[in-house]
Amino acid sequence: MQDRTYAADVDAGESATVAGWVHEIRDLGGIAFLILRDKSGKLQIKLEKDEMDDELVETGLGVHRESVINVTGDVKEEPRAPTGFELVPESIEVVAEADPELPLDPSGKVDAELPTRLDNRTLDLRKPEVKAIFEIRAEVMRAARETFRDLNATEINTPKIVATGTEGGTELFPITYFGEEAFMNQSPQLFKQLMAGSGLETVFEIGPIFRAEEHNTPRHLNEATSIDFESAFADHHEAMDAAEEIVVSVYEAVAENCEEQLDLLGYDDFDVPEGDFPRLSYEEAIERINATGELDEQLVFGDDLSTEAERALGEDVGTFYFITGWPSEIKPFYIKDQDDDETLSTGFDMMHPRMELVSGGQREHRHEKLVEGFEQQGLDPEQFEYYTKMFKYGMPPHAGWGMGGERLVMTMLGLENIREAVLFPRDRQRLSP
Amino acid sequence: MQDRTYAADVDAGESATVAGWVHEIRDLGGIAFLILRDKSGKLQIKLEKDEMDDELVETGLGVHRESVINVTGDVKEEPRAPTGFELVPESIEVVAEADPELPLDPSGKVDAELPTRLDNRTLDLRKPEVKAIFEIRAEVMRAARETFRDLNATEINTPKIVATGTEGGTELFPITYFGEEAFMNQSPQLFKQLMAGSGLETVFEIGPIFRAEEHNTPRHLNEATSIDFESAFADHHEAMDAAEEIVVSVYEAVAENCEEQLDLLGYDDFDVPEGDFPRLSYEEAIERINATGELDEQLVFGDDLSTEAERALGEDVGTFYFITGWPSEIKPFYIKDQDDDETLSTGFDMMHPRMELVSGGQREHRHEKLVEGFEQQGLDPEQFEYYTKMFKYGMPPHAGWGMGGERLVMTMLGLENIREAVLFPRDRQRLSP
Repeated sequence: MQDRTYAADVDAGESATVAGWVHEIRDLGGIAFLILRDKSGKLQIKLEKDEMDDELVETGLGVHRESVINVTGDVKEEPRAPTGFELVPESIEVVAEADPELPLDPSGKVDAELPTRLDNRTLDLRKPEVKAIFEIRAEVMRAARETFRDLNATEINTPKIVATGTEGGTELFPITYFGEEAFMNQSPQLFKQLMAGSGLETVFEIGPIFRAEEHNTPRHLNEATSIDFESAFADHHEAMDAAEEIVVSVYEAVAENCEEQLDLLGYDDFDVPEGDFPRLSYEEAIERINATGELDEQLVFGDDLSTEAERALGEDVGTFYFITGWPSEIKPFYIKDQDDDETLSTGFDMMHPRMELVSGGQREHRHEKLVEGFEQQGLDPEQFEYYTKMFKYGMPPHAGWGMGGERLVMTMLGLENIREAVLFPRDRQRLSP
Repeated sequence: MQDRTYAADVDAGESATVAGWVHEIRDLGGIAFLILRDKSGKLQIKLEKDEMDDELVETGLGVHRESVINVTGDVKEEPRAPTGFELVPESIEVVAEADPELPLDPSGKVDAELPTRLDNRTLDLRKPEVKAIFEIRAEVMRAARETFRDLNATEINTPKIVATGTEGGTELFPITYFGEEAFMNQSPQLFKQLMAGSGLETVFEIGPIFRAEEHNTPRHLNEATSIDFESAFADHHEAMDAAEEIVVSVYEAVAENCEEQLDLLGYDDFDVPEGDFPRLSYEEAIERINATGELDEQLVFGDDLSTEAERALGEDVGTFYFITGWPSEIKPFYIKDQDDDETLSTGFDMMHPRMELVSGGQREHRHEKLVEGFEQQGLDPEQFEYYTKMFKYGMPPHAGWGMGGERLVMTMLGLENIREAVLFPRDRQRLSP
């Protein structure tokens, strides 16, 4: 349709062909309005019953909502129309008639539950405010990649079919790969580290990860988008700087480039974080959580933070923040211990007040220590030889992190359920569409 | 390492700390040169045996190749040095000593076979010319996304775990998904179509696809990167225009932004295609192939094109080109037939002279016809109801295509084997690293 004009781009005094969906028909008697909706917005089509060809009026009034139509006519200024313009049709072509019984109402007049929305994403994404979420999501990914390039990082793609999981055999989906046992990768961790040790040095990847976690919560997915960063010659402080820079720049980009979408989502005021996120030590964090009195039991050194603990601390801090210096024993083998205290790791998390967004740290780059770490974690280092072997040939100190792409969008837009931030979520119950 | 300077960024008259790998040591007697290599390039470190601290000289001369070192010293102009500068060290710190027995020589003096290279990608990507391939690959993906946005397309992410394959049960990797049978998706085809029918209208995705094809050739992968485009209100001609625009803009971006990498790969002259790729009908294509006399048997209407046929035609045409109007019977159910001749489809391929890059077409958007197509192809439409159902609610005409990401890089750079265009290839034999 090379001569098609978007609804938002029509101009008074010209003839135009628009194409889109029948959003609504308002019949006022002698006059009727058909509202056409397309990617760009809506346009009022005026039907004057006495002055227009009967067939044309009949077509315009008889067509079911959500049908696809092409309309050609003259564009007039009309201050009372939602966009300031209306189109007086010469022809209306029904391209794809919709069934009158819709499983979901894209005009938004009838609310739909999330499962119905997810079963009917095609219709759900005709709602401008749902579409806005995914346009913002696309901008988030674009802006993140741009900032990664500013950080001198090279985009990589690592395999999603792997012989061994990042952290052993738990929580992996098994695949049959030409008769061999394989898994869907739960994280690009080991591969991005191998690339930090290559001539690329600083790398990023935005791609799918797969976790066979049994829990079904509003903030977990079994297939998610991970935003990964890894850099040679960086320590955990610099890795935190990079994570902060990505978050700030992504918020800035959305504020700048998605005004219309933010409006649709009801944001009068979209707050861009200023950076300099507080960096709390793990010990400070548990002290502050205990001080809130929100938990039934006091936390002690070595405890992981429950959802409730994260929430209590998030409310207390009130901004993005880091938790640093986690106990070594609750961090995976590839996280380096602190030089002056082996009980503490260089591992960190970046937290949104609502939940964890990022997990990272400096990595163990010393071959011997790394192999020891596998053994301590009960993993067989031989199974990971493709990875550990490279640490014998000049593996620089390196650090990095993984960020949950959907969590970033979910917390940014205040979505209740992480499934609202992904087109076709995969969870314990949902495998289709 | 916030005070680190890249090798390529040092300037005469200042003190600098550089960090990287020991690329080479040249001992000339009274003087020796240690060549340090980092992401940015190489830097000569001068060791003057009589004038420098013995320990410093010993460290510099004793370190194994590919070890990681930090060097601090003064930068001097030195016209005889490869970059015009050299660094006179005050300190050399060995950060990670490399084993003297390397499985692969990153200096490139000893050639390695592809399997050895793939087993040791960390070392392989320390070769500047291998690293250059992946820097170009990253630029290809960046430029493609930028052009997609110019085409008003929104980036989407579709699921990789699916209940049914795009084209039925063949060539799929089975997964166990919480006790249920599922598959790794072989193409985002059905999902991107669902999104073309949503308010997004025009969408793209760059992501992994998985094909359990048995053949092991230099141009097939079992896990590949697919560049996908789909647009509502577009026909196959417009889809071809978009594919052409992506290819041309990606070549332009590489020519403009990857000069150094192209130099390393030996390109004196990198040809950017001009567009207006010839569009041959299928019937013209088989006539021309038959006329080359390269095939043992003459092709007849309904034949698919073998590798030999593609090669013969590619040599004959000599540029990128399209083959349009394929017989309907050899195209999948979702490709629309031509309006005036049901034996011909709107399906097209875009060809590089060496091989097929893109496959696309206008899609069947009429519910009834689509369901018929499933049946004709021996598929059960009920299994695909999540997809077909949406075609009842105002599915616009739409068209699109999928492009092989690795094939695009492979043909652009004249790589012999597609495995050279992917960091960690997956094929019939290779599942690790």
